[in-house]
Amino acid sequence: MTRNYIDDTICAPATVPGTGAISVVRLSGSDAIKIADKVLGEVLKNMAGFTVKFVHVNDNDGSVLDDVLATVFRAPHSYTGEDSVEISCHASSYIVERLVALLLAAGARLAEPGEFTRRAFVNGKMDLAQAESVADLIAAQGAASHKVAMRQMRGGFSSQLKQMRDDLLHLVTLMELELDFSEEDVQFADRTELVSLAGKVRSHALKLAESFKAGNAVKNGLPVAIVGATNAGKSTLLNTLLGEDRAIVSEVHGTTRDTIEECINIDGMLFRFIDTAGIREGAGNIEKKGIERTIAKIRAASVILAVMDISSPVRRMSESLSVILEHADLKEQKLMLLMNKADLYTEEDKGDFPAELMNRLTNIYDKLQGQLPEGLTVVRDIPVIPISAKAGFGTEDVRGALADYMRTVMGEPGDVLVTNARHAEALRATADALGRAIQGLSDGIPTDLVSQDIREAIYHLGEITGEISTEEVLGEVFKGFCVGK
Amino acid sequence: MTRNYIDDTICAPATVPGTGAISVVRLSGSDAIKIADKVLGEVLKNMAGFTVKFVHVNDNDGSVLDDVLATVFRAPHSYTGEDSVEISCHASSYIVERLVALLLAAGARLAEPGEFTRRAFVNGKMDLAQAESVADLIAAQGAASHKVAMRQMRGGFSSQLKQMRDDLLHLVTLMELELDFSEEDVQFADRTELVSLAGKVRSHALKLAESFKAGNAVKNGLPVAIVGATNAGKSTLLNTLLGEDRAIVSEVHGTTRDTIEECINIDGMLFRFIDTAGIREGAGNIEKKGIERTIAKIRAASVILAVMDISSPVRRMSESLSVILEHADLKEQKLMLLMNKADLYTEEDKGDFPAELMNRLTNIYDKLQGQLPEGLTVVRDIPVIPISAKAGFGTEDVRGALADYMRTVMGEPGDVLVTNARHAEALRATADALGRAIQGLSDGIPTDLVSQDIREAIYHLGEITGEISTEEVLGEVFKGFCVGK
Repeated sequence: MTRNYIDDTICAPATVPGTGAISVVRLSGSDAIKIADKVLGEVLKNMAGFTVKFVHVNDNDGSVLDDVLATVFRAPHSYTGEDSVEISCHASSYIVERLVALLLAAGARLAEPGEFTRRAFVNGKMDLAQAESVADLIAAQGAASHKVAMRQMRGGFSSQLKQMRDDLLHLVTLMELELDFSEEDVQFADRTELVSLAGKVRSHALKLAESFKAGNAVKNGLPVAIVGATNAGKSTLLNTLLGEDRAIVSEVHGTTRDTIEECINIDGMLFRFIDTAGIREGAGNIEKKGIERTIAKIRAASVILAVMDISSPVRRMSESLSVILEHADLKEQKLMLLMNKADLYTEEDKGDFPAELMNRLTNIYDKLQGQLPEGLTVVRDIPVIPISAKAGFGTEDVRGALADYMRTVMGEPGDVLVTNARHAEALRATADALGRAIQGLSDGIPTDLVSQDIREAIYHLGEITGEISTEEVLGEVFKGFCVGK
Repeated sequence: MTRNYIDDTICAPATVPGTGAISVVRLSGSDAIKIADKVLGEVLKNMAGFTVKFVHVNDNDGSVLDDVLATVFRAPHSYTGEDSVEISCHASSYIVERLVALLLAAGARLAEPGEFTRRAFVNGKMDLAQAESVADLIAAQGAASHKVAMRQMRGGFSSQLKQMRDDLLHLVTLMELELDFSEEDVQFADRTELVSLAGKVRSHALKLAESFKAGNAVKNGLPVAIVGATNAGKSTLLNTLLGEDRAIVSEVHGTTRDTIEECINIDGMLFRFIDTAGIREGAGNIEKKGIERTIAKIRAASVILAVMDISSPVRRMSESLSVILEHADLKEQKLMLLMNKADLYTEEDKGDFPAELMNRLTNIYDKLQGQLPEGLTVVRDIPVIPISAKAGFGTEDVRGALADYMRTVMGEPGDVLVTNARHAEALRATADALGRAIQGLSDGIPTDLVSQDIREAIYHLGEITGEISTEEVLGEVFKGFCVGK
């Protein structure tokens, strides 16, 4: 492992600047307590770890800068594993700026982005995958992404990787044992058993690599395209869905509308909505300019909400549906038919649907099936949801259907999901190397050559947890962190 | 004093929401430790004050919400004077939101704005003037406003008020002692002595009330108007001044350009710049539409920077100067003449001024004097500063002159400055009541009536520190705080 030069003591604000009640400045390194004491006046040196002191801080002109609370942590019992001090002051930008300036003057260095977490990694407090999850944890916008990040931070992913690595080391041992005795022409390990063991680890690596699609959806939001004819009510639906959620998201903290854009949090799961231009009337128009962008959005989505205006001719509905069915991959993507303007067929203020409406929908559905071009079929298990985007009913059903689908994407609650492209790539490289090893074993390639492939697989697993790491990889991982973390 | 109902336990995030490293949620009230323990799992109840524990927090579905640090404070040794808990978690909006929700479900109530500080006041940890200075401290944007707020928070102002109040109570005692024995026609106190004592306190109250102008300038920035003819270089000057400073202000923390607008921090003192429309050529134009707004800005300023284009005819310079001299009050306001485009008369890259230029400036200055309308005079102690807004020289001299003037406004470093309109008003009311008392004593008004005026003065002093306070006053004071302070 590459080791950093970490003899110095780093310092940075740990809280977001702005008008709050409290700001925290943190220090970490072998001189953290000594440096803090230069600024605070020799009050911390005899304090035990996990204790707090109320201190007046003087600026260098002798005037009082602030009354602060200083908490002492002694190595290795701290976030970084080093001696650390957290100074909690009044949340004034001026005070934080001066406090940091005083600590720098006393011998600390301003921390680089993620340097506290990087030190925690270097000092063995967490592996690299866990360190990366710290950034994910902070960025998590909903319960689902939070749970995935937390599971990773607490080592669920790392322990699976460790098991895989142990299995492969065992495999290598078996093979190299054979090698040592090769001149005696003894074959210790049954090649079938070796293939089975490598195959097990390979399947596991592939399964984890494949979970990246779901992991990415959980972390960054499941992409949902809203598609339909012009005036089918796509924008109204989007606004209704967004409107409800925005209120929830900004409930406690001051999240602004701008930052959530077109994301919706349903049952703690994040959905990223993609509105598309309406598909215009006339079959001949389908291939016209503009439709390409809608098609690209259909292809990029995990869920396609096909909005149908049930008051429009069935022929018109079938046109937009044809575009979707032609370009979507229903094995990978989820299609939902939203039968909009259902309020025209029921009492608006009741919002429940009489048998008459359901009959009409079934009718439309059958007719749609009949009007679709040859080769395109609407599968029966596609949810058909009557809604009124305008009157606001049925949208709960849409939210429910989206949440249900996300749950199937996420798999079992305990499943580890890979949320990081770097990890997915390393897992794929692991699987590839093991694939070559299995092939080699089957083809009777000499054990020492096969052993090279296994060692490569171990190397790639080690890249994820940071047992193998280069300055470049570490730089890449931590540059996305904020200063102070 | 009005007492609040403070049997319940309050809870709020204490740090600014956003992507940082650490967020803090605080709890205060008699059940703070019990409620925190419901969420954290009975770990705090036996902890001493000023100690910290590392705890896993579970959400109510049993999943791990976060690993946090919880600090216990036991009454009365806390900010509020009550049992308190500070929970330091990862800076994720989601975690903070859930943590607050769990604490609310466990029996806490969401704190109102400033409620922690209000409890500190109610529990006698600070008086009302000190509590108000907490908000000022947080908002302080420079060293000067920070020092003034810190001095007030640490009780410098309060101790002066206490001395004044004690003097007045002594006065009342002397007078009422006389009253008790009045039937015996004994006159204990020498009326001259009473007048002198009341006069001393009155002068003090007036001096403090008058310091509000300076205090307000320190707190909110000294208003500086930049005035001159069109194309004299006003905007270039403003940009040069702002450009330099903005870099300094945003040095450590992520202050955005938007928030500092047209404020400049010079040597830690805040200046609020007011750019004005150029005064257009032709004496006849002076009274035209638009000039009223410039005049209003001249009147609102504490410092007027008159920007003169020294390459323009002296007649033209005298026009804009006439407008300034006509509407400014040079006893209350500071005028500085900035002789712009001085680079035309010197070597641009040297930036020092040859005797030739200074001669020309003196010349212009004398000619200006000659061309001003009758009754208007440019006083000799007005600083005349050669600058080149474009080449950027001379602006350091402008900054220096502004800083010097601010220092004269602020008075001696140890002086208490009133920064709060409510305090200034109460001090004026105190002085008024004492003025009536002094008049009454001189006019031989009966002691019991005079005593009423003194009691009124004491009442107004008590309003400042909160010895006298109503729900309305407290509501007004704390509504400006953020939640969590």
